[in-house]
Amino acid sequence: MTTQDLVTQIRKKNSFLCIGLDVDLEKIPPHLLSEEDPIFAFNKAIIDATHHLCVAYKPNTAFYEAYGLKGWKALEKTIHYLNQHHPEMFTIADAKRGDIGNTSRMYAKAFLEDLGFDSVTVAPYMGKDSVEPFLDFKDKHTILLALTSNQGAFDFQTKNIDGKEVYKHVLETSKSWENSENLMYVVGATKAEYLVDIRSIIPNSFLLVPGVGAQGGNLQDVCKYGMTSTIGLLINSSRGIIYASSDEHYAEAAAQKAKELQQEMAFILNQ
Amino acid sequence: MTTQDLVTQIRKKNSFLCIGLDVDLEKIPPHLLSEEDPIFAFNKAIIDATHHLCVAYKPNTAFYEAYGLKGWKALEKTIHYLNQHHPEMFTIADAKRGDIGNTSRMYAKAFLEDLGFDSVTVAPYMGKDSVEPFLDFKDKHTILLALTSNQGAFDFQTKNIDGKEVYKHVLETSKSWENSENLMYVVGATKAEYLVDIRSIIPNSFLLVPGVGAQGGNLQDVCKYGMTSTIGLLINSSRGIIYASSDEHYAEAAAQKAKELQQEMAFILNQ
Repeated sequence: MTTQDLVTQIRKKNSFLCIGLDVDLEKIPPHLLSEEDPIFAFNKAIIDATHHLCVAYKPNTAFYEAYGLKGWKALEKTIHYLNQHHPEMFTIADAKRGDIGNTSRMYAKAFLEDLGFDSVTVAPYMGKDSVEPFLDFKDKHTILLALTSNQGAFDFQTKNIDGKEVYKHVLETSKSWENSENLMYVVGATKAEYLVDIRSIIPNSFLLVPGVGAQGGNLQDVCKYGMTSTIGLLINSSRGIIYASSDEHYAEAAAQKAKELQQEMAFILNQ
Repeated sequence: MTTQDLVTQIRKKNSFLCIGLDVDLEKIPPHLLSEEDPIFAFNKAIIDATHHLCVAYKPNTAFYEAYGLKGWKALEKTIHYLNQHHPEMFTIADAKRGDIGNTSRMYAKAFLEDLGFDSVTVAPYMGKDSVEPFLDFKDKHTILLALTSNQGAFDFQTKNIDGKEVYKHVLETSKSWENSENLMYVVGATKAEYLVDIRSIIPNSFLLVPGVGAQGGNLQDVCKYGMTSTIGLLINSSRGIIYASSDEHYAEAAAQKAKELQQEMAFILNQ
């Protein structure tokens, strides 16, 4: 999917919502556990109930790897279901991978080609040659961790190198990498005030913003400081939507929560 | 496995060699492709031929994920084979994971508990709460990326924060984390001269050193600057050993290459 396609979807749906499919068998409605594949059953119901309210889905691979072969199979079924029934959705493998060049190439192929995700999240610590193999894929996107939404972000990301924080060096340096037009960035919503500085470095890139809701970010602030003329934002919510209810009406409850965020987004988009 | 057990194995075998099981179907002997599970068949043959010469095996998860379900199954079979037939081996899931706390916990459980690896490699970018969930597991080890062996290491890891490189901040900061005695570190062998500084920060921790051989490091130098009274080093070689030959004698060829390194190590240990 091209960035232009994504912007078109956002305008059509009046939504820049991404739903995180972080499926924990201890949190999904207990009646699903008797299904042959509870994880996929849960995802399918959530997708069917919410796809008109969001533009992206983001399974975090940790939640699938935690269930071994069954989990990996559920991840495959989920991305195939999305690609077959909702090809207009932007799909994100939230994998936070990154390794030396020839190894990163294996990860890139696995997520962007074989599984067929539109994008994958990547950690920057190992630098240029660990990220460029992901950028090689046409109309695919690499979402680089810049400033994350957790407390540990202050351990290294905000430390100062020659008068500039580490995450700003990540943003600036990454602009010089080959096919850098395929980059997007993870920027935590708990620090909306940082967005002014971030936009001065990457004025147009799409930002994937976790941490609205459960992790404490504020949608209005994020949009005020982070939105561009072509939107440039994907706001993720995971637990706040998918675990809105644990009874048999969980999918409707998820849709309701998604709708509340979508309506807030529609209001902002039409201001 | 405790660190003491690992040291005992090193002294017993006169070896601190780790063999990287980075299985690429395009590089293994073609006759294996007709096997039901070529990846596991290759690993089993390599393990059977080399286990007396090394103390650790390190599958890099990228090479398994690249083959989807089949790859994940081969990874499971490989670690089960090791744990069943060679429980004295130190096993490393080279996964370079790291995410917010509750998500890192899923990865930690997957690799250290369910798959039963002794250790897993973790990226430090997201800080303390992304690493501590891995440190929670008794007699398991978290191998934190500090200074990697690739060119991209110079993009961020060696940049200077308040007079000290980023990777040194990673080493120092990580010492204050809970259960930090379960930490080991990845330090690239292409920069042996850095080891003096590294040892001044972490005098006793085990270092996993990639990059000897294919990536250009020198074993003598690494030992000169990095070895401690309890060894403190695991030297990894992947391609240089497992792809020593692509004919039907590949396992013997791998053993020969492993033996050359083991003998060099024995010489150093007995100096």
